[in-house]
Amino acid sequence: MTSKRTVAALPGELTIAFTREFEAPAALVFRAHTEEDLIGKWIGPIGTHMRMREWDARTGGSWSYVVVSGSGNGEWAFHGAFHEVTEPSRLVQTWEFEGNPGHPNLEILEFADLDGGRSRLTGLSVFPTLEDRDGMLADMDGGMDENFNRLDGLIAAGELG
Amino acid sequence: MTSKRTVAALPGELTIAFTREFEAPAALVFRAHTEEDLIGKWIGPIGTHMRMREWDARTGGSWSYVVVSGSGNGEWAFHGAFHEVTEPSRLVQTWEFEGNPGHPNLEILEFADLDGGRSRLTGLSVFPTLEDRDGMLADMDGGMDENFNRLDGLIAAGELG
Repeated sequence: MTSKRTVAALPGELTIAFTREFEAPAALVFRAHTEEDLIGKWIGPIGTHMRMREWDARTGGSWSYVVVSGSGNGEWAFHGAFHEVTEPSRLVQTWEFEGNPGHPNLEILEFADLDGGRSRLTGLSVFPTLEDRDGMLADMDGGMDENFNRLDGLIAAGELG
Repeated sequence: MTSKRTVAALPGELTIAFTREFEAPAALVFRAHTEEDLIGKWIGPIGTHMRMREWDARTGGSWSYVVVSGSGNGEWAFHGAFHEVTEPSRLVQTWEFEGNPGHPNLEILEFADLDGGRSRLTGLSVFPTLEDRDGMLADMDGGMDENFNRLDGLIAAGELG
C-alpha cells in the first residue's frame, strides 16, 4: 500500500508534506476525518482504542481525545482547534501532543476526487521549530501508514457508508 | 519607540519572530490580548474601529472581527481559533485574513515580566508557505508598530486597569 503515499520533509525546513490516495470519494474520506463516530476507528496504532473528550468539527470548534493501549496501561492525549472545516474539501486544524506540551503545529488537509471513485488527500503540517518538525517526523514514520491502512480497511468494509 | 521592538524574519524561512517590551506587567498585556472589551482598542490602524463578530478567548475557543475604516467604506475581516489560552503567560492561536482566504498561520505569544513593572512579549508566527510569510512581512511592517504604539497609549492612560 505504501506506493499510494508520498512524504516530503526536506532537511532544515519546518514542514511535512504528504499525499495519500484512497479507494473512496473525497466526501467519504472527509467524513472519516470529521465525524465523531468515525475518527476513533482509524486514528491510533492497531490494538489501541480512542477515548473521546471533545469533538466539535466545525470552523472555530475544537477537539480532544486520548489514545489508550490495549492493556489500558498506556495513554496518549492530544488536543487542538479546528481553524476551518469546509466539507468536503478542506480541513485546517491545530494539533498538540499533551506528552510534549507547548509544541503545537498547524495542519492543512485537502481532499480531492480522482477518477473512478477514488480520491487524494494532500496534507501540509507546519511546525514552530526544526526540533518539533524532526521529532514529529521520527514519530510518524510508520504511524501514518498504520492509520491510513486502518482507514483503507474501513473503506473496504463499507463502514463509511 | 522602535528600539523596544525586534523582528527576525530570515530570507527563505517560514517564520516571523518578534519581541516587544511594554511599560506594564505581563498580566496586563495578556489581558489586552484576550479581553473582548480591550482588543478592539488597539488592533488596527489609527482611525479605524473594530466590529466584533465572535470572541471566546479560552483554549478551544475562537475569534472573528472586522476592522472598519474611519469613513466606513473599507472593511478587513479576520478570524481564527484559540489553540491555547494560559493566563497570563501564553497564547497560541490561528490567524487568517478573509481577503486572502486559505492562507492561515499559527501564532505563539509568550508574556514575561521584567523588572520594574515592565514586561516582554515574544511572538513567533509560522506560515505554510514562503509566499504567505513574505506577504505578511510586507503588510505588517509599520502595522505592528502602530498597533503596539496604540497599546502603549492604553497603558499610559491606565485603561488596562
